[in-house]
Amino acid sequence: MLSTTDTPRAIVREVGLRDGLQSIATIVPTAHKIEWLDAAHAAGQREIEVGSFVPARHLPQLADTAEVLAHALTLPGLVASVLVPNLRGAERAMECGAHSMIVPLSASHAHSLANLRKTPDEVVAEVARIRAARDAAGSQTLIEGGVGTAFGCTIQGEVAEEEVLRLMQALLDAGADRVSLADTVGYADPAGVRRLFEKARALVGDRLATAHFHDTRGMGLANCYAAWQTGITRFDACLAGIGGCPHAPGASGNVTTEDLAFMLERMGLATGLDLPALLALRRRVEGWLAGERLHGTLWQAGLPRHAAASLAAQPA
Amino acid sequence: MLSTTDTPRAIVREVGLRDGLQSIATIVPTAHKIEWLDAAHAAGQREIEVGSFVPARHLPQLADTAEVLAHALTLPGLVASVLVPNLRGAERAMECGAHSMIVPLSASHAHSLANLRKTPDEVVAEVARIRAARDAAGSQTLIEGGVGTAFGCTIQGEVAEEEVLRLMQALLDAGADRVSLADTVGYADPAGVRRLFEKARALVGDRLATAHFHDTRGMGLANCYAAWQTGITRFDACLAGIGGCPHAPGASGNVTTEDLAFMLERMGLATGLDLPALLALRRRVEGWLAGERLHGTLWQAGLPRHAAASLAAQPA
Repeated sequence: MLSTTDTPRAIVREVGLRDGLQSIATIVPTAHKIEWLDAAHAAGQREIEVGSFVPARHLPQLADTAEVLAHALTLPGLVASVLVPNLRGAERAMECGAHSMIVPLSASHAHSLANLRKTPDEVVAEVARIRAARDAAGSQTLIEGGVGTAFGCTIQGEVAEEEVLRLMQALLDAGADRVSLADTVGYADPAGVRRLFEKARALVGDRLATAHFHDTRGMGLANCYAAWQTGITRFDACLAGIGGCPHAPGASGNVTTEDLAFMLERMGLATGLDLPALLALRRRVEGWLAGERLHGTLWQAGLPRHAAASLAAQPA
Repeated sequence: MLSTTDTPRAIVREVGLRDGLQSIATIVPTAHKIEWLDAAHAAGQREIEVGSFVPARHLPQLADTAEVLAHALTLPGLVASVLVPNLRGAERAMECGAHSMIVPLSASHAHSLANLRKTPDEVVAEVARIRAARDAAGSQTLIEGGVGTAFGCTIQGEVAEEEVLRLMQALLDAGADRVSLADTVGYADPAGVRRLFEKARALVGDRLATAHFHDTRGMGLANCYAAWQTGITRFDACLAGIGGCPHAPGASGNVTTEDLAFMLERMGLATGLDLPALLALRRRVEGWLAGERLHGTLWQAGLPRHAAASLAAQPA
């Protein structure tokens, strides 16, 4: 569609370089990550999670985060995020000048202990320390609390909505600027998404800024639609649907960037994205990830013949 | 979930034996189709489209429809439908005692001429003849008008909502008992689905009884959810997501039965379906369709560990 200044907008935040690559064995060279960044930026992407400030021995794939981030910061208008698991990572993110840093919290107590080695409330306390450090440093880096396993967990099963909402509020009270809700393991259904996001937005309004879904059981786009119905306009996604959950081998990963962008555009929202350019980038990334399972549908079906021209380029 | 008599229900109508198989080259022997019917019935499916009364030379895959239908009619509580393109097919459906017959109409004029060799209004006139024949015969076979290309068309592009609504109403006026709306080519997005289904239901209420989506661009489940939000509780789907559109080679086909059933159950709706039994049937059908592309996600990811028990068997 031809977007105008009145067209409602939606943001597809690319998380392929972090959430996508972190579960992929093939180490992608820094030069390719920079090529990816440049092409994603050229295709209109303006929010990208570029890596993670965790110890390199834990995630060799993301050991070059500082370098990738430095390049991202040269791209005009790009909002560059990094994941930080703790105060040390946050300090690096601020030193490097990241625009925002995402602190993951797992609403499932069991998942939190298994993956972060902290209870959820210990993560909240860490966010308070991160906020204090930011205030002391006079840094502009936004703090986003990412509430994961918000729709259930492979270890403990059900995660109570009340606990998710309590922790989301606690993150904001501790000093996070905004929060996101994530279906880390692909358990969410659209009715549940709608219910939880409605409750969450009633509590914290637009400070619940992002929805993060995996497509493990095919409901990724349905869940995005349900979240959008509650007012969410920023969605995490990975080019080629890479990523996934170590507890569900063979299952698909994050919502696929190009599929989500196509859906949002078809819904009449302006994403600012050039879909043929994203599909071309997908082919390039596919070449770097030989042997890895990629996902998505648009690359197979192609753009509808009659939509191709109008979806090709959006005025910025 | 444990369903009770108060649990809202949803129906997944299996169309794999017709819409699915008709685009598959491998001819499935009648004995396998009967095995499929038996297993689908045992897994709780109570509405199945079993074939099509078209000339056998056009669709050798469905040449055994009368035989398959005869077997379907022996299964207790099963509502057996067939597709009929014209009066002659309808006469056979009534002679054979089908519970319902689906008359396809393409809202796209160009698609209608290319696929049915009739204008949409000529199909409406045929439905009037079918209704007259049914009344004359005192047959109980329901007439369902299936409005295809309701969300766009690969040949003519856009299909006006007003035209879809006009033709839907015309089918009912001509004597159809109920109608469905179908995204024949996989162009629909959930916002468009919600808009059109809301308008359509405002016009004809529950006589708009079924939603039929393809998953060509990954939006099949999102579209089902959007239709459900307007009050639709019957959805067409194909086991293993078989089927598809000859104009989109390589693209996925119908919404996948087992994925849709899983989504509906997760949403708190009772489908009456035994998901592990459906997944087992999928594996059998996969064996018969060696070399064909199947689709879906649940078979890969599996049922969530904690949900497996409660989703396994629903009281009928």
